[in-house]
Amino acid sequence: MDNLFALPHPLPEQETFEPLLPDRGVLIERIISTGQASPPGHWYDQERDEWVVLLQGRAKLVWEDGRTRELGPGDHVLLPAHERHRVEWTSSEPPCIWLAVHGDLRGVRG
Amino acid sequence: MDNLFALPHPLPEQETFEPLLPDRGVLIERIISTGQASPPGHWYDQERDEWVVLLQGRAKLVWEDGRTRELGPGDHVLLPAHERHRVEWTSSEPPCIWLAVHGDLRGVRG
Repeated sequence: MDNLFALPHPLPEQETFEPLLPDRGVLIERIISTGQASPPGHWYDQERDEWVVLLQGRAKLVWEDGRTRELGPGDHVLLPAHERHRVEWTSSEPPCIWLAVHGDLRGVRG
Repeated sequence: MDNLFALPHPLPEQETFEPLLPDRGVLIERIISTGQASPPGHWYDQERDEWVVLLQGRAKLVWEDGRTRELGPGDHVLLPAHERHRVEWTSSEPPCIWLAVHGDLRGVRG
């Protein structure tokens, strides 16, 4: 996938996760969402830090501690490892294009 | 800087590099170019791998081995450590917005 803004036709029905490089400790991936949300009661609880930017569309993140954040194009957020969060909603028109970087982004593992 | 697409007014005369997180082994930064190029004969020769995506604008990369690549919005490229390259030109209208990830992206340091 050469261009982050180039979407497949037809759009996938499932949320899709596409690594942009092989995962050798740092994973850089594109995520396409088309209206999906995390299942009710499901919390992401990730082993690695994630930095994510929404490049297109709108979405809302919710944290277990009650914080919420609505994101538009260009908005970015750091999700430290094990900071439990979910995706409350994503726009389908236009589809959401996310760029995510997973890894040890806070130097906590030395 | 909360939004990658929000540009300062007035635009900086120099190319600007803004870390989006503290650099603790992986550096994620936004770069704004407004027509700058690498000085003639200057080659970037970086200690770390760099993955970079152009989010807005147009630009051209040139490698010491003769390869060239013109980039538009969404185009991304991996620049392995010590792969000597330069920026031949960048657009000023619109300004270039780059997102770069620097780190050990190929797992070569174990």
